[in-house]
Amino acid sequence: MAIEITGVGSYIPKVIMKNEDFLDHKFYTPDGQGFDDHPETIIKKFENITGIRERRYVSEDLNVSDIATIAAERALENAGIDPETLDYIIVAHNFGDVKHGSTQTDILPSIAARVKSKLRIKSPRAVAYDVIFGCPGWLEGSIQAMAYIRAGLAKRCLIIGAETLSRVVDPHDRDSMIYSDGAGATILEEVPGDDHGILSHGSASFTEDESHLIFFGETNKQDLYENTGYIKMYGRKIYNFALTNVPLAMKTCFDKSGKDISELKKIFIHQANEKMDEAIVERFYKLYGKPMPENVMPMIIDKLGNSSVATIPTLYDLFLKGHFENQSLEKGDVIMFASVGAGMNINAMTYQV
Amino acid sequence: MAIEITGVGSYIPKVIMKNEDFLDHKFYTPDGQGFDDHPETIIKKFENITGIRERRYVSEDLNVSDIATIAAERALENAGIDPETLDYIIVAHNFGDVKHGSTQTDILPSIAARVKSKLRIKSPRAVAYDVIFGCPGWLEGSIQAMAYIRAGLAKRCLIIGAETLSRVVDPHDRDSMIYSDGAGATILEEVPGDDHGILSHGSASFTEDESHLIFFGETNKQDLYENTGYIKMYGRKIYNFALTNVPLAMKTCFDKSGKDISELKKIFIHQANEKMDEAIVERFYKLYGKPMPENVMPMIIDKLGNSSVATIPTLYDLFLKGHFENQSLEKGDVIMFASVGAGMNINAMTYQV
Repeated sequence: MAIEITGVGSYIPKVIMKNEDFLDHKFYTPDGQGFDDHPETIIKKFENITGIRERRYVSEDLNVSDIATIAAERALENAGIDPETLDYIIVAHNFGDVKHGSTQTDILPSIAARVKSKLRIKSPRAVAYDVIFGCPGWLEGSIQAMAYIRAGLAKRCLIIGAETLSRVVDPHDRDSMIYSDGAGATILEEVPGDDHGILSHGSASFTEDESHLIFFGETNKQDLYENTGYIKMYGRKIYNFALTNVPLAMKTCFDKSGKDISELKKIFIHQANEKMDEAIVERFYKLYGKPMPENVMPMIIDKLGNSSVATIPTLYDLFLKGHFENQSLEKGDVIMFASVGAGMNINAMTYQV
Repeated sequence: MAIEITGVGSYIPKVIMKNEDFLDHKFYTPDGQGFDDHPETIIKKFENITGIRERRYVSEDLNVSDIATIAAERALENAGIDPETLDYIIVAHNFGDVKHGSTQTDILPSIAARVKSKLRIKSPRAVAYDVIFGCPGWLEGSIQAMAYIRAGLAKRCLIIGAETLSRVVDPHDRDSMIYSDGAGATILEEVPGDDHGILSHGSASFTEDESHLIFFGETNKQDLYENTGYIKMYGRKIYNFALTNVPLAMKTCFDKSGKDISELKKIFIHQANEKMDEAIVERFYKLYGKPMPENVMPMIIDKLGNSSVATIPTLYDLFLKGHFENQSLEKGDVIMFASVGAGMNINAMTYQV
């Protein structure tokens, strides 16, 4: 028995926000200080570090449950399966539906229940729930689905990562330029065979000193006496945390697969910062005494920013559908998924196509 | 190998809200109409149907993650285990931390990550995540933990249900009198043996016509032009839905256990409405051609209201600790857990002590 991804789909929101669109934003430090730099300089520095040139926002009429449904429909179509045969619908997110103009998270009912309803699935069979696990949520949902299949609770699961971070950004925080919206979905199934599918996995939650590195906090513009939370992070600390822990976690996971590092063809990694991802993957290869191979890490951050739980399934979908010229996967190729985010959580999976 | 509950703990909030405390509330129908009845009559009717006389609210300084931690500490102590040995920390809730005076859900980082941090667990090993599954969330988290144990991903899991519904009620809605706050926690472990622990389980998500029976909606006082969501429900429709589907789901689950109905000693059922619970359990026994046995269903709704995900683990904790006079469980006794709530989700578990 193998556990295989049999379908992939994604939704890329229509509204393109370029870096220039932030030129009129007045940014402040977390201490409430303005910047001496000209806005253009701030944005240039941002672009050099993160690699982000533009990002996508949903239109005002759409919510997380809507774009999650579109991605799900595409994954179901890609797998060519009847939605009524699903055993689980797992949706990873971190803010749920936040309507345009609202500051409230709406997860009653769960996003998974809404998606199941919007997919017009009649049977009560598919168990629909949401998982909250920071940016690594889609990958964690996939590991959960794998466990249900192994334990005999399921044969076919739909796992979705969907987020609208544009609805929870502080416009006075430079980090707001990182975040974007998106949705990606996969079908994970039990299939015959034993030389492909999920080979190994690993997850961990670092909470002793790290749990508030990404948090829900106030605006940087301290003269605004509003009682509103936004997505916030300590970027420098996250960078150090990720560089210390992610390469090791990836190695632990990869070694459990029994494969040789030379067999690893591609790494689909969560994308919050291009420089950070490069440093992580370089260190990962250094643990094997090897340089990072060219093109091993497909990147979409320049155009799509950090769409949280949606990033990896969207990236994988674009890759499989030919988005990266002269790059493709063959039957038998070994790949890795890896993610780090709020919690702070880290997870990884080795997978054979 | 058996999968057993080895520890139970709960936190019952300190603030007692009696039905009389709602006498000065001005209630409206969902259409915005006032009631002709005197407030005392409204409250009396409410009490007769739901069986609720009082409910508990947390003090202003406490949030879901705080009370979840207290319940977890008690369950860990009850099990007599080192928190560092946990493989999973699963927290079920539906609104996360909603600070006093705020209308925003704060689940960044997840409540599970906060609990792990507050428990001062050093090891990154325990995977900490939140599950959103309506009131049946704690039971669903337990089923997920069971799957991880069966699939070899875990040996020891902490599952918590915690909610502060007092922070999301519409004071102009009679249903606001139903909701309360609370937290309950259990430790689920792989132990030797095969004649005890979890015998069978079942879950389902009814979303075709039912997904919005419990939802996030506006105040009933329609001249308040606020942009705020509250917990809302269609009580009559839920009653009919539950009576149609819960007894059957319970029977399907119980029959999978291989036990005879005469062996079933207690049913620990989610409590949102006393009359509804009685009707459900009567119908369940009717499916076996039997009358409902006396005292088969321990109730705490009169004093604790509906604390959502916290109800079942709190009830089970109180029961095991002698809250119900002349009622106890012996080694080998067969019991059931059952729940219904937002989604609409239904789940059940047969368990041998």
